[in-house]
Amino acid sequence: MALLVVGSIGLDEVETPYGSTADELGGSAVYFSFAASHFSPVRLVGVVGQDFPQDCVERLARRHIDLTGLQQVQGATFRWHGAYEGRMDQARTVEVHMNVLGAYEPAIPAAYADSHYVFLANGPPPSHLRALSQLRRPRFVMADTMNYYIEHEPKALHELMQRIDAMIMNESEALQLSGRPSLLAAARWVCERGPTYCVIKKGEHGSLMRGPEGIFVLPAVPHETVVDPTGAGDAFAGGFMGYLAGRDDVGAEAMKHGLAYGTVMASFAIEQFGLRGLENLTADAIEARRAEFMRSTHLFA
Amino acid sequence: MALLVVGSIGLDEVETPYGSTADELGGSAVYFSFAASHFSPVRLVGVVGQDFPQDCVERLARRHIDLTGLQQVQGATFRWHGAYEGRMDQARTVEVHMNVLGAYEPAIPAAYADSHYVFLANGPPPSHLRALSQLRRPRFVMADTMNYYIEHEPKALHELMQRIDAMIMNESEALQLSGRPSLLAAARWVCERGPTYCVIKKGEHGSLMRGPEGIFVLPAVPHETVVDPTGAGDAFAGGFMGYLAGRDDVGAEAMKHGLAYGTVMASFAIEQFGLRGLENLTADAIEARRAEFMRSTHLFA
Repeated sequence: MALLVVGSIGLDEVETPYGSTADELGGSAVYFSFAASHFSPVRLVGVVGQDFPQDCVERLARRHIDLTGLQQVQGATFRWHGAYEGRMDQARTVEVHMNVLGAYEPAIPAAYADSHYVFLANGPPPSHLRALSQLRRPRFVMADTMNYYIEHEPKALHELMQRIDAMIMNESEALQLSGRPSLLAAARWVCERGPTYCVIKKGEHGSLMRGPEGIFVLPAVPHETVVDPTGAGDAFAGGFMGYLAGRDDVGAEAMKHGLAYGTVMASFAIEQFGLRGLENLTADAIEARRAEFMRSTHLFA
Repeated sequence: MALLVVGSIGLDEVETPYGSTADELGGSAVYFSFAASHFSPVRLVGVVGQDFPQDCVERLARRHIDLTGLQQVQGATFRWHGAYEGRMDQARTVEVHMNVLGAYEPAIPAAYADSHYVFLANGPPPSHLRALSQLRRPRFVMADTMNYYIEHEPKALHELMQRIDAMIMNESEALQLSGRPSLLAAARWVCERGPTYCVIKKGEHGSLMRGPEGIFVLPAVPHETVVDPTGAGDAFAGGFMGYLAGRDDVGAEAMKHGLAYGTVMASFAIEQFGLRGLENLTADAIEARRAEFMRSTHLFA
């Protein structure tokens, strides 16, 4: 089943203790798409400026990402400049230029209106709501959010929560959104406000999912060295939803396995700068990593 | 097999958002003993002052903890006053009085010299070394440590590492001791310096073990509410070593299962104030919690 993603496409400048990059293809929708494309056809809805390099378009096309929804408009592409230090568990934003993303209103191409699986990557909740209204009958919609929208768009965010199947956030966002003192209490709070599932990303500590079947927790793939954590959360969401869409299955077992695939894709993302870790992966490499992960976390594997 | 523990016995004052306690039986060796006593006979070596209440002695005895190694000396019992706030992931020490623990030198009773399983709870590494030298031929020795000894007793701590089978620490201690930027790198660093196993406790994020078979990671039992985290790490160590000693097995599978039992015992510890969560547990309750934990973390359970 085709998987639709709406979100940012950008050019990143990233500094880590292992080096730095500039003019690097990035953005939440792009990391998501690269990860998901290993499991399912992906439809990308987003905007870039006239400075968006042709080789970035080609990199997306090589992952067989459907670019019908990619708009190129007057102006400059969204740019993010971030730095990671120490344990590299959090990005420090050095600079951000919204550019063409600032005034962007997602337009879902008519050919995408039948999309069954939808990911609303981190973006303004009012735009998410308008994007959703352009879809016919999605089967599974997941949305991400961040501190800025929690603070500035609480009403639209609450309305959005009533219209989606799953909410995905990182730890600090879940605590901030819910105002609860623990992740489990935060996940319960979210699920009481609409979404059937709440997924909380804990970075190097793994993830937690609350659903009708209860709580499911997974550690992250153990890594001695993290080269570039940029996009890990979106790669996680991409592996998760790519797996669901690829199998067209949102049953309880599929949700768990999806979370494991998300974990695996995030682990590939952080091993190399930018999208390189997600770019030239084979299905065999993904399965081998998954088997290794199962061994390192399972008592009876 | 009998399990020997050397460590602190104290009277705690604890404040949490859920209430407070004073003159509460505590100390690392006590939390360890209470957890371990559900799996194996425990021999406790430690010191208390003349103010140590008789009902605390009786609480230890009711858990069938062998108190031959418990010394009562002139002076006051070790006292710790701690507070937990917000997410309660770290204790703030309000006050600490070493009292009789300050000058204490563990004396291993002759009847304990044959102990095969030994836990050196957080304490001065030079004392740990002297305690070890009083044992005949231990099969599996695990030691805990903390920031103070990492800073002030590096030489003795390194010597100790060469004489133990496993080192257990929390996250920040592992990073501090090793000077490495990731937990996996820290665990490797530790294992290169003597111990066959390195266990890193990550609180609500679970634990990580490095051994000859590679890396094993487990999340914590998901908890919506933590009433009192005091002693969770020692209860974790107690469940882990209690399981190993009870089965007299230090094989690779036993190590993994031990870690799961440690996780389960820590989860009981934090549910109630002080030792109450560990005190009146039945084997059935432990197995039920373990089965629930397996379900919430295992893809194929």
